[in-house]
Amino acid sequence: MATYLITGASRGLGLALATELAALPESEIRAVFLASRQPHNPNVTDLVEKSGGRVVPVQLDPNDSESLRAAVEFVESRVQGKGLDVLVNNAGIQPITAGKAEKVHDFTEVFHTNVTLAHLVTSAFLPLLRQGQKKTIANISSSVGSIGFAPSFSAVPVHAYKVSKAALNMLTIQYALDYADEGFSVFAISPGWLRTVLGGEMADLPVETGAKETLKYIRQAGPELNGRFLNIHVPGWENAPGPNRYDGKDLPW
Amino acid sequence: MATYLITGASRGLGLALATELAALPESEIRAVFLASRQPHNPNVTDLVEKSGGRVVPVQLDPNDSESLRAAVEFVESRVQGKGLDVLVNNAGIQPITAGKAEKVHDFTEVFHTNVTLAHLVTSAFLPLLRQGQKKTIANISSSVGSIGFAPSFSAVPVHAYKVSKAALNMLTIQYALDYADEGFSVFAISPGWLRTVLGGEMADLPVETGAKETLKYIRQAGPELNGRFLNIHVPGWENAPGPNRYDGKDLPW
Repeated sequence: MATYLITGASRGLGLALATELAALPESEIRAVFLASRQPHNPNVTDLVEKSGGRVVPVQLDPNDSESLRAAVEFVESRVQGKGLDVLVNNAGIQPITAGKAEKVHDFTEVFHTNVTLAHLVTSAFLPLLRQGQKKTIANISSSVGSIGFAPSFSAVPVHAYKVSKAALNMLTIQYALDYADEGFSVFAISPGWLRTVLGGEMADLPVETGAKETLKYIRQAGPELNGRFLNIHVPGWENAPGPNRYDGKDLPW
Repeated sequence: MATYLITGASRGLGLALATELAALPESEIRAVFLASRQPHNPNVTDLVEKSGGRVVPVQLDPNDSESLRAAVEFVESRVQGKGLDVLVNNAGIQPITAGKAEKVHDFTEVFHTNVTLAHLVTSAFLPLLRQGQKKTIANISSSVGSIGFAPSFSAVPVHAYKVSKAALNMLTIQYALDYADEGFSVFAISPGWLRTVLGGEMADLPVETGAKETLKYIRQAGPELNGRFLNIHVPGWENAPGPNRYDGKDLPW
């Protein structure tokens, strides 16, 4: 009977995670809060209507402290004193670089969206997460945010995104270290290269596969996942060439 | 006969690096440009006067594109077509966190100063660095920016600084990968925990020791250092307890 909040949930991986969760029995999932700036788009509305009340859209612009406060109050009013169990920080942007590193003009903007806003959401929902049973915070990272794998991904022209995901990994381990004593499990996970607006049509996997495999970790998360950088496991991709090896083994920082 | 430009050079490690360089013979060091927002402070003026013209202050506020452009033009006017050999991105801030991760309010600001400004300086000076002989870019990082070492540094309350240095490491390896084919050597280096305004009085080493050991790498940098995260080597500190082991072995990302 867990409650989830997913950011960036109006499309792509966020929406796919919500769709997978909504298909699980009520004995496992009590509510899924879909947070986004514009939660009343057709994709979300469709899922909300089919869910019998378990999927709940939440207006959330974490750049606006009033919106953030209102979102926390809204979720609090719905969870009846039982807190929030799982936060999935999924919102993010991935602009393409037009050339080599010197051409990047948006490092600060991408960092702010992909790291600082995840932090602001996490800190705002921390009181509700403390009241929850599972105390799970999953930060959606990426294997291209692995500094150790950087040579393998040198041709992928998303410099600011890579820097932001390495930074998100460091943010993740700091939350993991700071809140381990309260029973939290905070981890980074690479959901695979997925066919979404962000990932593009050339990507390795359908978004549903990435969502399913990511949820296998999130649904069973406990202290053993705290502070780790997880990689999904997709049967048949264990020995894929290059770094897109979805073998379920932790990624290097 | 190399030329150097050091940012954040009006105090601390930056000034110590410049002081060490100014003590080397002219056959090795032709000019050291000390860049800072306020380059006309007593510490810098003193070094400039003693240097016989080899140490040159440069006004540089990389947040101001006009200041950055003027600084590049100024350096260009002094190097007589020989370019700039070495850039040391040393400028940085390290605010203390008042509590656990949730209390941090300045992730974006610290990232902007420690990462984006290093990038803006690098990209602005890249044309001059291309004309130089050594093509060395040294980014001053920190062992507390090692995600792998994070558990050892969990008690050090500088969350935003740690995130920014992990991000700087990812920036560094991207420059290393993008410009290796042009003969550049771009690396991150941890200068040790030094007794400066930033490091505090409890720090392990005098700033002069950190500066000397850091320069041993920078002065002899070549392609073999490209894309690495270096640690200084201080005799006697090879087996120090904890992560402050200045053994000269590369740090984990």
